[in-house]
Amino acid sequence: MKEISGGVCAPKGFLAGGIRCGIKTSSQKKDLALIYSRKICNTAAMYTSNKVCAASVQVSRENTAGGKLRAIIANSGNANACTGQSGMNAARRMARLAADALGISEKEVAVASTGVIGVPLPISSIENGIGALKESLRADGQGHADALEAIMTTDTRKKEIAVEIEIGGKVVRIGAMTKGSGMIHPNMATMLAFITTDAAVENAALDSVLRLAVKRSFNRLTVDGDTSTNDMVVIMANGEADNPPVSNTDKCTADYNAFYSALEYVCTTLARKMARDGEGATKLVTVTVTGAENEDTAETLAKSVASSSLVKAACFGADANWGRVLCAMGYAGVDFVPEKTDVSFKSVAGEIEVCKKGESVPFSEEKAKKILSEEEIEILVNLNYGSEKASVWGCDLTYDYVKINGDYRS
Amino acid sequence: MKEISGGVCAPKGFLAGGIRCGIKTSSQKKDLALIYSRKICNTAAMYTSNKVCAASVQVSRENTAGGKLRAIIANSGNANACTGQSGMNAARRMARLAADALGISEKEVAVASTGVIGVPLPISSIENGIGALKESLRADGQGHADALEAIMTTDTRKKEIAVEIEIGGKVVRIGAMTKGSGMIHPNMATMLAFITTDAAVENAALDSVLRLAVKRSFNRLTVDGDTSTNDMVVIMANGEADNPPVSNTDKCTADYNAFYSALEYVCTTLARKMARDGEGATKLVTVTVTGAENEDTAETLAKSVASSSLVKAACFGADANWGRVLCAMGYAGVDFVPEKTDVSFKSVAGEIEVCKKGESVPFSEEKAKKILSEEEIEILVNLNYGSEKASVWGCDLTYDYVKINGDYRS
Repeated sequence: MKEISGGVCAPKGFLAGGIRCGIKTSSQKKDLALIYSRKICNTAAMYTSNKVCAASVQVSRENTAGGKLRAIIANSGNANACTGQSGMNAARRMARLAADALGISEKEVAVASTGVIGVPLPISSIENGIGALKESLRADGQGHADALEAIMTTDTRKKEIAVEIEIGGKVVRIGAMTKGSGMIHPNMATMLAFITTDAAVENAALDSVLRLAVKRSFNRLTVDGDTSTNDMVVIMANGEADNPPVSNTDKCTADYNAFYSALEYVCTTLARKMARDGEGATKLVTVTVTGAENEDTAETLAKSVASSSLVKAACFGADANWGRVLCAMGYAGVDFVPEKTDVSFKSVAGEIEVCKKGESVPFSEEKAKKILSEEEIEILVNLNYGSEKASVWGCDLTYDYVKINGDYRS
Repeated sequence: MKEISGGVCAPKGFLAGGIRCGIKTSSQKKDLALIYSRKICNTAAMYTSNKVCAASVQVSRENTAGGKLRAIIANSGNANACTGQSGMNAARRMARLAADALGISEKEVAVASTGVIGVPLPISSIENGIGALKESLRADGQGHADALEAIMTTDTRKKEIAVEIEIGGKVVRIGAMTKGSGMIHPNMATMLAFITTDAAVENAALDSVLRLAVKRSFNRLTVDGDTSTNDMVVIMANGEADNPPVSNTDKCTADYNAFYSALEYVCTTLARKMARDGEGATKLVTVTVTGAENEDTAETLAKSVASSSLVKAACFGADANWGRVLCAMGYAGVDFVPEKTDVSFKSVAGEIEVCKKGESVPFSEEKAKKILSEEEIEILVNLNYGSEKASVWGCDLTYDYVKINGDYRS
């Protein structure tokens, strides 16, 4: 597997574009994105588990239910959530506008929105912009940058990736873009992520690999513990690579595993990028729990640590306050033996053990501070119990998180 | 019922005191407290549900199991948690030191600690200070102030109360003190709270009223979502008021209800004070959910809103971002109908409806900002479904929370 450029346009047959149509009123940034496949795609998707979900989620859920898609239209600057029947009408209209412009069925279009909740979507801006949006689909494969820009809100970094692998003797590509920086918490698809591939993948297999990859990536990401109303992850596979289709009946084959591994790599890379770009974050904090009886226990404990406001604030202050790590594990609601648990901190500056069998060990505060002052830090917990493990990605809690969210709407 | 002065010393027969023995190294503040009853007390207690719990919690749990107590010794500056067998030895020694000084059995002493986790308790400081601690028990009823000061950590306000009621023709008093400002989250006794009363109350009744009062007060309080390793609530009833004993067999009588109501008032008043004094908080945020099918659903939804980092940051910024309120309810994991839900904001500056039946209603941003700029604000949610309700107390998320917790240990 190798990383390549091109994002969602790296796989054959995908075009993308993005424009500013005027939904964002407080900036001059792009706010409307389009991803389009020349051929019909097999599709799998995951949506927010929030009971309050955006109109776009409801419409996309309907349109992806059949497992076929050709396009995704997405706007930023407005979540189209808590907007009632008129919001549903606007989301459907958005799909229809894209479908009409592209000459496809509106059922082949997924709709995504991100931004402020509870404000009517200015659908007329999208109506006025739809022609320009279609024009923005660049044939040179560079449209991914515009599309990506158009789905960003408080994101400060562009989060995209593409990889190339070989399946059944054919070169196959997976590309992806994502936005998400606040209101991100695991327990389902956790932000907007659009994944394209020119691999031929049967629908059932696409669903299986997406679910597992999301479980191990986006669902192990936490920025502020808030599960959004608008989250979705969509993967479109158009088969233009001409490989023998990846199928669930070949679950143990090298091809299936190669595709899964590449997808997991794409998703975990983006999940890490999102954690690093968490609102106000100065640090990527990876919490890894090893020595667990099973992966789920490891994940639950790691999530509890990564979600703790006190742990996050300590990371911001580069304070080796390991007691908060154990404390957060203690209220996670799963079984472990505090008296067996070891805790270390790690970064490029080194590694230091701070807790052995649930108790303090003497350590150099100076060295710990140095380790925790890096931009990427790891909290390593060994339960010394079993052989399973899981990593969760989070970030520190900073002044800027408070600043960004203290007045988001203005 | 009327409020009176004197805190835990207001009930007859209770003495209190507090000194500095040197556990706190970064300040010259008091750090060792004692509460003592001349007569043996019926006792009920509740402890942290955190799997990682302090040695003091383990020792106190043993000593209160029999329902009898005469004293509480408490230190601040060190949590004596994650300190292994030597921590257990230190906690037992602390009980014995108090018992020997007071001439009572060590089984009649509860032990409490609060402060940094994972650092050995300097028991020699307590040994050296125990004489002075006993001397600090003031006969003039003013020792409560010293005791209270000695259990404070990052608390900025003194949180105590006392009330007087009549039971069976006798004047009865309840007094209480509490500390707690960070690492506070519901789902059990949530900080240190010591309650004294001169009422005669049978053990089973004391247990019943404490559990219900805590459920409706301290367990509806959230500062940062972290459940501490050290939380405990202890009530001591010495019977010196000579009232006919309050008993569970009289659960529907006026006396039982009067005692319960007074205790609930004491606990909710302290819970509100703790929320207002949440680390870095500039505002007390009360979330009230009405129109629920049952009280537990209302509580769960209100807790989810009060715990949301995004809601808390919006409160700090006085931003009427009601979409975040609905969003937080949506991931609370209980049933409600978003399309029926109304949301208002309220304070002494007025009340404003911002969401009706799950959708935006036009409202004056200026008026909303004014309302949310007050020091005590309310988020009112009506589910328009049933007739039950619950209130939860929280606070805003501020720069200072991050500052305080970014470098707590130094």
